[in-house]
Amino acid sequence: MALNETHDPALKSWVESANASANAGSDFPVQNLPFAVFRRPREPFRGGVAIGDAIVDLAAVAERGVCEGAAARAAAAAAGDSLNALMALGPATWSALRLALSRALREGSPMREALEPCLVPRAGVAYAVPARIGDYTDFYTSVHHATNIGRQFRPDNPLLPNYKWVPIGYHGRASSIGVSPQAFRRPRGQTMPPGASAPQFGPSQKLDIELELGVFIGRGNALGEPIGIEEAEAHVFGLCLLNDWSARDIQGWEYLPLGPFLSKNFATTISPWIVTLEALAPYRVPFERPEGDPQPLPYLDSEANRQAGSLDVQLQVLLQTPSMREPASICNTSYRHAYWTIAQMVAHHTVNGCNLQPGDLFGTGTLSGPTLDQAGALIELTQGGNQPIQLPDGQTRSWLLDGDAVTIRGWCERPGAARIGFGECVGRVLPAIAA
Amino acid sequence: MALNETHDPALKSWVESANASANAGSDFPVQNLPFAVFRRPREPFRGGVAIGDAIVDLAAVAERGVCEGAAARAAAAAAGDSLNALMALGPATWSALRLALSRALREGSPMREALEPCLVPRAGVAYAVPARIGDYTDFYTSVHHATNIGRQFRPDNPLLPNYKWVPIGYHGRASSIGVSPQAFRRPRGQTMPPGASAPQFGPSQKLDIELELGVFIGRGNALGEPIGIEEAEAHVFGLCLLNDWSARDIQGWEYLPLGPFLSKNFATTISPWIVTLEALAPYRVPFERPEGDPQPLPYLDSEANRQAGSLDVQLQVLLQTPSMREPASICNTSYRHAYWTIAQMVAHHTVNGCNLQPGDLFGTGTLSGPTLDQAGALIELTQGGNQPIQLPDGQTRSWLLDGDAVTIRGWCERPGAARIGFGECVGRVLPAIAA
Repeated sequence: MALNETHDPALKSWVESANASANAGSDFPVQNLPFAVFRRPREPFRGGVAIGDAIVDLAAVAERGVCEGAAARAAAAAAGDSLNALMALGPATWSALRLALSRALREGSPMREALEPCLVPRAGVAYAVPARIGDYTDFYTSVHHATNIGRQFRPDNPLLPNYKWVPIGYHGRASSIGVSPQAFRRPRGQTMPPGASAPQFGPSQKLDIELELGVFIGRGNALGEPIGIEEAEAHVFGLCLLNDWSARDIQGWEYLPLGPFLSKNFATTISPWIVTLEALAPYRVPFERPEGDPQPLPYLDSEANRQAGSLDVQLQVLLQTPSMREPASICNTSYRHAYWTIAQMVAHHTVNGCNLQPGDLFGTGTLSGPTLDQAGALIELTQGGNQPIQLPDGQTRSWLLDGDAVTIRGWCERPGAARIGFGECVGRVLPAIAA
Repeated sequence: MALNETHDPALKSWVESANASANAGSDFPVQNLPFAVFRRPREPFRGGVAIGDAIVDLAAVAERGVCEGAAARAAAAAAGDSLNALMALGPATWSALRLALSRALREGSPMREALEPCLVPRAGVAYAVPARIGDYTDFYTSVHHATNIGRQFRPDNPLLPNYKWVPIGYHGRASSIGVSPQAFRRPRGQTMPPGASAPQFGPSQKLDIELELGVFIGRGNALGEPIGIEEAEAHVFGLCLLNDWSARDIQGWEYLPLGPFLSKNFATTISPWIVTLEALAPYRVPFERPEGDPQPLPYLDSEANRQAGSLDVQLQVLLQTPSMREPASICNTSYRHAYWTIAQMVAHHTVNGCNLQPGDLFGTGTLSGPTLDQAGALIELTQGGNQPIQLPDGQTRSWLLDGDAVTIRGWCERPGAARIGFGECVGRVLPAIAA
């Protein structure tokens, strides 16, 4: 998707809090315009677009007739309690709404008077999962994560032979996806301690995080009709932050031969805000394969994907124990290190005819970078729990304890482009249910 | 669930085609009363109950006020284009509707005049997937299937160590579940031929079936609140037939380490009719573990489950190639051979707090019986494709070819109980999409 006037880093908004001069490091300048579903207390949920410390209420935009044409249709489709209808409309319509809001929100816009009554302060609103997620698929696109994990099981041959050919993915659980901030109970389950002859049952003792991005599908495809890689990104609405909480002890005992199940499906937390692919256009980077690695099969390869298939999204994980006054960073990395791109995930998922639907969610898989301090899971950061991480207050953690809170942040910045951000994805561990 | 007057094998209906005397081997006598979502051409989809060659139109029942109280509420909940609202009401309400319909359909019922205008001939109706399936989970409950498959990979140690402790399951794809009769394209994908140095791409050459039962969830549970095994069956609405089509060559290359994905998610076919757990009450059998096998952990064990946790549902798979005049049976078995029960599946799925929702679907996994002619998949029947099955017209099959149709049938019969059936689950293979 090409750059256009909405990406101009010089743009400022009459919503002062959206401007870098007013709010250094703001996630939501006028160049971003991400979508969420929100409400104020005792109001219905509806779609909104973030601008600085405020939200453009799309139900109000639709009701007041602020926009025209495709932008008006987009706002109307986002006026309900999920964004599925908006997602189904496709990129030209999403883009029309983005352009209309960008123009209306700019300093000096003649639309200010019409739009200003549609603004709601962000403080005090609650969010919903922004779409009815029909199916959730989790991928495994970081070769560094796959290698780090594989090394713990197979030191001499960490990476399985299919990894560099197949964008590995599996189906996850949609019902337990919650929006940030989410508190969830530590899961209970079966584990098999080393050397034991029978499994134990109880609360997981190896509760972990997985730093991921979520990818919301826009338009779907009919069953039996694959989406070619050239068209793949036109089916993607946008990205959010995602924490794929994982119980490693349950996972180790259950995962053969059909993959992770109860070790993952007790909770998955996503950020409320979806940053559109159009907003991310300034942060495209080439998709590159290390020297000597196989080139993707033709159905996973395109010139556009090679030129700009990857995205440079900065990612950070922070941990806060109950005794810490503020969260401490435990991982910094970038989405640019992923081995498979979004377009490749879409093309692979549908090449067999599998049908995607508006609101479906992909996870990228844990986004570990090339060095161990860039790892997006405790199992890597602590080398299987053997090297606990040191926290600023002197505590250590091999795995999450009850009361621990984990925050994921994501943002994009580079010279010559406006900084845009994803907000936060926060989750907190509650004690297991009493036996 | 106890036997009651609705199970009396002596009951006859004024719908003549429902009576064994009129229609030997009928699947839908008055003791069955399964649910589907149907329509006649140019009419809206709505819920219905099968009786002989007819369907009780539940939208008409609701509109005409044929029932009262809980039965009326159940009919109203089933008047729309999915059964989710009915499923959410719980077993007391389902049971009230069953009793009301059983009484109204009996020979000599004073309700006949009120109900007769609500009957629609089954011939010529079309069916929909009977619920909006939020999440689909496929289990692996046949130890014979797990052993047969394992033997092809690990002859000396076919069964993995977790099998007899963990009701293994994984998440499947909900969007590509279709209702019988379903025609679907042969999937394309990556495969790695033995000895090759790079994968190939093309139509699957090892297309297989999996004989399963589907289990529709009724009432759900809140995230974080497990369903105990004693309450598990109260959360189950009923069972259907299910064919989990599988591309074995794609599966072999993709499934490590996260499980099957594109090898399964191109199509899953279910029968239109859901037979309720109450209708199946006469076919309860004890859940027994072979001598020497471990007893289930406490969360998977109950007296009721031991006494009557299994179900004796007869199952048959038939194959018809384009040159055959009628389908030929290739497998006969029973659901009674499963290693894990429905109650154990529900208790296991939720023990970590995972939330189920009305309309969720479980697959039992391939229901192979103890002998090889009772195997529910070609990979077992043909020993990995090495011993093709012989068909009556002299053809052989190692795997499915284009144009082949597969029918699954299911029924229950024993002395002293009425025979009830599931109808059919039919699917047909279309050629792969052109390259």
